[in-house]
Amino acid sequence: MNSSLNLAKAIDNVRKTHPLVHNITNYVTVHDVANIILACGGSPIMSDEPEDVEDITSICNALNINIGTLNKQSIDAMFVAGRRAADLNHAMLLDPVGAGASRLRTTTALELVASFKFTAIRGNISEISTLAKGSGTTRGVDADAADAVTDANLTAKADLARAFAAKTCSIIAITGAIDLVADADRCCAIRNGTPRMGTITGTGCQLSGMTAAFLAANMDDPFTATVAAICSMGLAGEIAEKALLPGEGNATFGNRIIDAISLMDADTLEKGAKYELL
Amino acid sequence: MNSSLNLAKAIDNVRKTHPLVHNITNYVTVHDVANIILACGGSPIMSDEPEDVEDITSICNALNINIGTLNKQSIDAMFVAGRRAADLNHAMLLDPVGAGASRLRTTTALELVASFKFTAIRGNISEISTLAKGSGTTRGVDADAADAVTDANLTAKADLARAFAAKTCSIIAITGAIDLVADADRCCAIRNGTPRMGTITGTGCQLSGMTAAFLAANMDDPFTATVAAICSMGLAGEIAEKALLPGEGNATFGNRIIDAISLMDADTLEKGAKYELL
Amino acid sequence: MNSSLNLAKAIDNVRKTHPLVHNITNYVTVHDVANIILACGGSPIMSDEPEDVEDITSICNALNINIGTLNKQSIDAMFVAGRRAADLNHAMLLDPVGAGASRLRTTTALELVASFKFTAIRGNISEISTLAKGSGTTRGVDADAADAVTDANLTAKADLARAFAAKTCSIIAITGAIDLVADADRCCAIRNGTPRMGTITGTGCQLSGMTAAFLAANMDDPFTATVAAICSMGLAGEIAEKALLPGEGNATFGNRIIDAISLMDADTLEKGAKYELL
Repeated sequence: MNSSLNLAKAIDNVRKTHPLVHNITNYVTVHDVANIILACGGSPIMSDEPEDVEDITSICNALNINIGTLNKQSIDAMFVAGRRAADLNHAMLLDPVGAGASRLRTTTALELVASFKFTAIRGNISEISTLAKGSGTTRGVDADAADAVTDANLTAKADLARAFAAKTCSIIAITGAIDLVADADRCCAIRNGTPRMGTITGTGCQLSGMTAAFLAANMDDPFTATVAAICSMGLAGEIAEKALLPGEGNATFGNRIIDAISLMDADTLEKGAKYELL
Repeated sequence: MNSSLNLAKAIDNVRKTHPLVHNITNYVTVHDVANIILACGGSPIMSDEPEDVEDITSICNALNINIGTLNKQSIDAMFVAGRRAADLNHAMLLDPVGAGASRLRTTTALELVASFKFTAIRGNISEISTLAKGSGTTRGVDADAADAVTDANLTAKADLARAFAAKTCSIIAITGAIDLVADADRCCAIRNGTPRMGTITGTGCQLSGMTAAFLAANMDDPFTATVAAICSMGLAGEIAEKALLPGEGNATFGNRIIDAISLMDADTLEKGAKYELL
Repeated sequence: MNSSLNLAKAIDNVRKTHPLVHNITNYVTVHDVANIILACGGSPIMSDEPEDVEDITSICNALNINIGTLNKQSIDAMFVAGRRAADLNHAMLLDPVGAGASRLRTTTALELVASFKFTAIRGNISEISTLAKGSGTTRGVDADAADAVTDANLTAKADLARAFAAKTCSIIAITGAIDLVADADRCCAIRNGTPRMGTITGTGCQLSGMTAAFLAANMDDPFTATVAAICSMGLAGEIAEKALLPGEGNATFGNRIIDAISLMDADTLEKGAKYELL
């Protein structure tokens, strides 16, 4: 089923180079974001004070901007850090959490996309549609079920992803039951993961943080880096679910995902990854 | 021992309607609050930027205000969100963490109670006594042992709870070794839970978040909703404690509580709930 | 191998006196900090609003300042709380996370050290070197490998620690593969712990929070208190690693550390502690 993307190399590069990732992210899932970046081989730093972020970004390899609990101070920090990271040609990822759910989130995400050429933008279908259209409404921070990527609308959604990738010069990652990764020319569909991943908070935020690490370690091939990160996360969810014992539920499942990432090797990833180029 | 409250219906309603809960809460326990809301069937959103909260609250079904790490920005957000939630007749819950421990916490909690008719107010006995009296001192964020609800003072504490419920037109929930839930006319004592729940951070905050979800899903019967949430949490603590293996301690116990909530069904709740109407 | 420090008494004092620890700390690891303070017998309170911290510190026994995600508001709070804690002769601990990595962090840490006589300052070798020299650069929030304390440079690093302890009148704790604890006259090397502790976020922050509790419970002997806290943490890491089952990784390891602290008794600590006075 798999095509020829070298996912093994992508994950090995993370483990070899230990990229430093500067995260301006929400306080809900930040602990898991830090731990999954460490688990995949990177090193996380968190800083969202405008006077601190320029120095912090300067010593890093990637910048992960997540607007999950944005506030005026952290929004300032996003732009200050973004300018510095852009100057330094760092890997830059945007996770537009809740874009479409509030004017401030939509506006902030759109301004960030207008200001910087992100290496990758990762969100659910509602968030990405909002950015692609320039407006929108979402049900909180979850994707609208009516928007979901399915086999029936795969071509149309891939077109949307490619078009937005062409417009932004970014890798566009739309994650859900089926994940899509697109650049201007290609689109890859990924079928790893399990619905249970939607029953805990933070798998999306974790994926964004981890993707930033993969991007920094694979600057020559951000498309493959993004596919590798998404396959790793989905596969970790599958491994975590299979490992659940009777009486174990959501919290243990969440821990086992990070466990699985920390134990993921290139061979496991290559064998377990389920993706196809469309 | 149980009377006739329909706890099964209360939890089933959460799992059927997936209420969206807007949380303005502390950054210590926020991750667990998000996860337990998901585990019980709801969906959490966190936002504490004054310019963001009006939009976020508008798309939600409940507002959970927790003053555990309040600051000037988040206090503003509490009032902005509160006004919007009140206008929309959303379920509103207040968790006055540390009321009595500092002037800012006491004042903020009292102003919130004066400004809004909360559907429910949940705290430990020291926090609720502080609000009922309009002033007070507590030992940090823990209840003063001398204040604890016991069999010896149950009638007096129930009177306090009912009186404060009458004054505020809110359900009053006082949690501790024995929990009390009161409206103006009734008071229910709950004896689920285990002392070990006091050895980890956040069981109170989690209960508040979960209660907000139960309230939103049971707007016609907030009294039963609150009792059902508290019984669920206490029962989850009992299940978690029984599941502990040798060598497992506080962190695993905390995870197992969320596990137990994610696996809790109406039948388990009805059979395990230990409550009595006083 | 062990000398005559009474670690048993130090941990027993924490469990007997339940010191309240006011934490102004980062939002990445705050949940684990709260839980490990509870696990060792203390009680945590978090507050970083300048208008709140004076009241909160007043009811506590220790102040733990961690600059991991400092911002202008929390920096103000650190100084306000610090002045109050100093007036009340509370145990005070500084964790200068990322000192050397940014001007704001370096400056803030140096100003804190200049303003207050901390009972203890705990950091990695890069952070402590930065403070001792008054300037420096570090690789993010991790220690620079070239700086690491090793058997080959133990004498020189101990000299640095003692000299900085003499200058600050604080216990200086430098943690890494080999940990050093120094006052002006003595230096103790600790060899507990496992490299795996560097693969998860927050073991340093947790140690700082726990050390603050140990200091508050052992105000007559802060040197032994600090050694006891560090040995407890390292030993917990060893116990956690040994308990890992196949398929368990980083997240489970992190949970088992807190588990082990919650189960740690004086006898286990005395038998497992590996330290020597240099």
